Amino acid sequence: MIIQLDSHISEAAQQAIEKHIKGLKYKITNVRTQRAHYLVAIGKADIDLRSIGQLPGILDIHQVSDDYQLVSRKWRVRPTVLDLGDGVRVGEGSLMLAAGPCSIESEAQMESIMQHLLDNDVRIMRGGVFKPRSSPYSFRGLGMDGLKLFHQMARARGIKIVTEVMQVSQVEEMHDYVDVFQVGARNTQNFNLLDALGGVDKPVLIKRGISGTIEELLSSAEYVFSGGNEKLVLCERGIRTFETASRNTLDLNAVPILKEKTHLPVIVDPSHGIGIRDYVPSMALAAVMAGADGIIYEAHEKPEEAASDGAQTLNFQESARLIRNLRKVYALRQELD
Amino acid sequence: MIIQLDSHISEAAQQAIEKHIKGLKYKITNVRTQRAHYLVAIGKADIDLRSIGQLPGILDIHQVSDDYQLVSRKWRVRPTVLDLGDGVRVGEGSLMLAAGPCSIESEAQMESIMQHLLDNDVRIMRGGVFKPRSSPYSFRGLGMDGLKLFHQMARARGIKIVTEVMQVSQVEEMHDYVDVFQVGARNTQNFNLLDALGGVDKPVLIKRGISGTIEELLSSAEYVFSGGNEKLVLCERGIRTFETASRNTLDLNAVPILKEKTHLPVIVDPSHGIGIRDYVPSMALAAVMAGADGIIYEAHEKPEEAASDGAQTLNFQESARLIRNLRKVYALRQELD
Amino acid sequence: MIIQLDSHISEAAQQAIEKHIKGLKYKITNVRTQRAHYLVAIGKADIDLRSIGQLPGILDIHQVSDDYQLVSRKWRVRPTVLDLGDGVRVGEGSLMLAAGPCSIESEAQMESIMQHLLDNDVRIMRGGVFKPRSSPYSFRGLGMDGLKLFHQMARARGIKIVTEVMQVSQVEEMHDYVDVFQVGARNTQNFNLLDALGGVDKPVLIKRGISGTIEELLSSAEYVFSGGNEKLVLCERGIRTFETASRNTLDLNAVPILKEKTHLPVIVDPSHGIGIRDYVPSMALAAVMAGADGIIYEAHEKPEEAASDGAQTLNFQESARLIRNLRKVYALRQELD
Amino acid sequence: MIIQLDSHISEAAQQAIEKHIKGLKYKITNVRTQRAHYLVAIGKADIDLRSIGQLPGILDIHQVSDDYQLVSRKWRVRPTVLDLGDGVRVGEGSLMLAAGPCSIESEAQMESIMQHLLDNDVRIMRGGVFKPRSSPYSFRGLGMDGLKLFHQMARARGIKIVTEVMQVSQVEEMHDYVDVFQVGARNTQNFNLLDALGGVDKPVLIKRGISGTIEELLSSAEYVFSGGNEKLVLCERGIRTFETASRNTLDLNAVPILKEKTHLPVIVDPSHGIGIRDYVPSMALAAVMAGADGIIYEAHEKPEEAASDGAQTLNFQESARLIRNLRKVYALRQELD
Repeated sequence: MIIQLDSHISEAAQQAIEKHIKGLKYKITNVRTQRAHYLVAIGKADIDLRSIGQLPGILDIHQVSDDYQLVSRKWRVRPTVLDLGDGVRVGEGSLMLAAGPCSIESEAQMESIMQHLLDNDVRIMRGGVFKPRSSPYSFRGLGMDGLKLFHQMARARGIKIVTEVMQVSQVEEMHDYVDVFQVGARNTQNFNLLDALGGVDKPVLIKRGISGTIEELLSSAEYVFSGGNEKLVLCERGIRTFETASRNTLDLNAVPILKEKTHLPVIVDPSHGIGIRDYVPSMALAAVMAGADGIIYEAHEKPEEAASDGAQTLNFQESARLIRNLRKVYALRQELD
Repeated sequence: MIIQLDSHISEAAQQAIEKHIKGLKYKITNVRTQRAHYLVAIGKADIDLRSIGQLPGILDIHQVSDDYQLVSRKWRVRPTVLDLGDGVRVGEGSLMLAAGPCSIESEAQMESIMQHLLDNDVRIMRGGVFKPRSSPYSFRGLGMDGLKLFHQMARARGIKIVTEVMQVSQVEEMHDYVDVFQVGARNTQNFNLLDALGGVDKPVLIKRGISGTIEELLSSAEYVFSGGNEKLVLCERGIRTFETASRNTLDLNAVPILKEKTHLPVIVDPSHGIGIRDYVPSMALAAVMAGADGIIYEAHEKPEEAASDGAQTLNFQESARLIRNLRKVYALRQELD
Repeated sequence: MIIQLDSHISEAAQQAIEKHIKGLKYKITNVRTQRAHYLVAIGKADIDLRSIGQLPGILDIHQVSDDYQLVSRKWRVRPTVLDLGDGVRVGEGSLMLAAGPCSIESEAQMESIMQHLLDNDVRIMRGGVFKPRSSPYSFRGLGMDGLKLFHQMARARGIKIVTEVMQVSQVEEMHDYVDVFQVGARNTQNFNLLDALGGVDKPVLIKRGISGTIEELLSSAEYVFSGGNEKLVLCERGIRTFETASRNTLDLNAVPILKEKTHLPVIVDPSHGIGIRDYVPSMALAAVMAGADGIIYEAHEKPEEAASDGAQTLNFQESARLIRNLRKVYALRQELD
Repeated sequence: MIIQLDSHISEAAQQAIEKHIKGLKYKITNVRTQRAHYLVAIGKADIDLRSIGQLPGILDIHQVSDDYQLVSRKWRVRPTVLDLGDGVRVGEGSLMLAAGPCSIESEAQMESIMQHLLDNDVRIMRGGVFKPRSSPYSFRGLGMDGLKLFHQMARARGIKIVTEVMQVSQVEEMHDYVDVFQVGARNTQNFNLLDALGGVDKPVLIKRGISGTIEELLSSAEYVFSGGNEKLVLCERGIRTFETASRNTLDLNAVPILKEKTHLPVIVDPSHGIGIRDYVPSMALAAVMAGADGIIYEAHEKPEEAASDGAQTLNFQESARLIRNLRKVYALRQELD
């Protein structure tokens, strides 16, 4: 149950409400987000909403039958749209496109990619500075120095940055240099990290876990939201199955299912989703047709020389062609009856 | 290695070729299909193609590095197109659409569905008469009586039939009443059934196994082809994974991968692929955008009253809308650069 | 609901019972097995057992809440024990051991293996004559000629044969030459084959499907039982998962779960379950400790020369050692409190 | 390649070695553990070991073909045995037993469980104070206060503590109060946490990821080892598959495979591995027979009242019986030839 409070509610009035709810054996979580002030109440007893609704200081009450509450479309029926500034929006009504290398490697590399993005009117660049790698001996990214340079160059060009944060202590460190924090597939259930991102006033893009269920992805988003941060994007990126012909099994079923279950924007990462360069464009186009609000993919001037993930990375010619086609497909989808 | 023989080759010439090949420790399978006469030779030794190529009676030789041979695009680079008669074609250049109920139930049911198909210019009807059911106590279909009625009504309306065959003895029995034999997901590796279908001059639609790999699907098709039947269609229908929010996980990755590996048409069944009626259209559209040559889905006048699979079956209004949209999406895909 | 009828029930009395049950909207299946005569009634309405129980000709009634009925331990609480003749028993109270090659290859091969089995007091030999192979170009077994020789040699030595049947037409053909029909992992849901085996008076060993659930395995057994054949053994042989370090993932969880759900014997095939020779013994021992009623594994005089599955096949020294250890482990398990 | 250095090596000698190795395009990681000083060198070129071996200051060199190095048994062939103090050892030669509740709840709860452990001569207690929960609204554990009490009570009774650490900042905080840090299944690839635990002089128990491969588990252990901490235990706890009859699919195949690949102790958690109380003992016994060095399981005075995981938790009577049986099974395994 989600109770939206008057933002000017008196302390006494709030206490009265909480006392009433606790009397019903419900557990209360106090949530103050960028937009509003809520009480999330979890319990089992049947409740007569009218008896609560009359208490002073309550704006609205919704009963939500899912385990997740604040991210549910049973509560907020209108889709969430995020504003990244400078006219860059994410969610219903615009196709989010984000491209870039797996890892930030050098100034020259960023220079060429940013030019490619600007040439194609793409306003968001992805690129890792902290890289989760299975082996401790692999390249782990340029770290904060890389991020600062990334930020400086992106700012100068009006480009927004999405990059992965791997642990709690990085949240504050990275804060001023990113536009969107990405939670990677290995951290989808890193609950401490999610808690920390709940306290931040920047959007968070949460990737589905490598073997995470759709339900778990929504619950992870609920962590961030209930921590106070409403600015969320969910991302399908393929799950682990028995099939070895592709790197992962891109689960596009998740797109229409998520779009019905949550008001949050849902995007797709076809690069990790199939893991084979030649097939990335087909899956990107299919994802948009399935209803995705955007695509995040890997592009590099010379994929064969990329520090990581070269096998699934598009070159600029392929990337430009994909962008043109994605926009046509998105336009058609809007027109379908 | 695939050796295409002159169709008028003398027995002596063929024996000379076989003797030569066996001398290289290769195992030979003699394949006579509707179109041509081949020797498929499997072995490990490196071969000097020129020494074989000069033997009389050989039209062409291809070395194929895959385990499957005759279905590989490394051998036949042009896509296979099937002609079902009356202008109904399957494969490159046309969007195959097949719809109908999970099970054939009655004359009235078929009447209404056929009218729906004709109204929407869909020329292929799906519908089971032998139903594989997990429980022996479930409805198992109307059997041959149902099929004969199905055939009579379809013929009168110029509609083609695709229906499932479950065992060897049914192949002959059903032969005159079907236009396309369907091999269901539980029979993808029923090798005796595949062998039997290799001897038939009717198209065979093979569904991917419930947990079958892409490689296994191709090998199953190789069974039918090497048995003498070139008329094949492959169908992605969702695989079994840990995710329970959908009935299966529709693996659209399989579409571009299969399209590159084989010259056979590749279609998608979104009804089983996601298993939830409201999301079937999104996945059908996405499948076409991923490159599918067609869609086979479940439709019924009153899905809630269907004898089986009602939860994933579209009503006629939903079906008509989907057909319109599928054609628009297919048209756009042809135009993309 | 399972209604056991008096075996001398009059036709009129049976009709009266069926009429009564159908009046409750239950669907009836008439089951005559080697042991008794049952009606299996499937429906949803709550039933007052007393009103049925009074009808003449009824010996016993059980309500079973599972989808499967006759194989459920909620109905038959005492474990089923099969007698293969000559003192060879399968089920509670004895450890079933079956070993042999993946495929029957020659008289000499069988000779050496049978001697090995007799030396170690193992009375059941496994060995395929019809082999399901992914590729049509692989060795598919010696067929009926091989089986006849197998049978002749085994009979002379008092050894029982378990071998795979792949299609309906083979059931009759093979009948006189096998002691146990094996249904392989690719045929667990070949319902026509299961139906046919329901009509046979020989034990049937059903392997779990490659990606079959425990529930599906029980339903497949229900097919055979409801077809009239009570003589069933279930076999866990590993499922398909994302893990590639082993050929399959042996799901020993299935052993205690199956032992509680069904009265049928449950055995384990560690050879396919892990697929790596060095680890087969550990998994065999673990399976017995988990509660398995027996082990079926692959053994060959020279595994490296076996026609198939050599990588998971034990040589005779390893096999003899495993047999000794299995008996010690089984003995200990009987003693545990 | 692992190069063990003389612990009294001069800086100049070490620099000479590193220069030589880097000249071969190998990347070097300097590893100082509790036991020794190593250089781990990763590269591709073939190396003439003799040319390196002659350099002063080198004790030993091993070439390891796996991605992981320091945890490989190709390097260290003798099994690692950990000493937790007070005679409690983990690894070859002793059966590690750890039991306790999912979550620490109260002093009375701990009191009763510790008494149970002492009565049965079990010296390690498990119990969570920081609980990873899918939903932000679930009970998340008693935190540091709970741990301090846990520690105080355990110390007084000579009991060792294993408990989960969820994030980097907790490592230092928890350090003085735990005997073994546990890395949970959701954090197996939390590389920052693994890095942090590499700097600690306490044993680390790493659980396999919910869908982690055996290879990934070994690579995660490599993180900790290469960070300087040799004191590691690996734990199989079930993987996520399509099967829903059990909570997870306990992959006992992992036991013999891990035991061959690594010198580290390998234990099993049957409670999460099957998730159903009645079957936990069978799987624990099977795990030991498969070769596990120990068992960690959930026990509680009144499982039905446990704050979490009650459905898979044994009561004290069941637990005592299991302990007795585990010891008998372990004893038999030692005797098998």
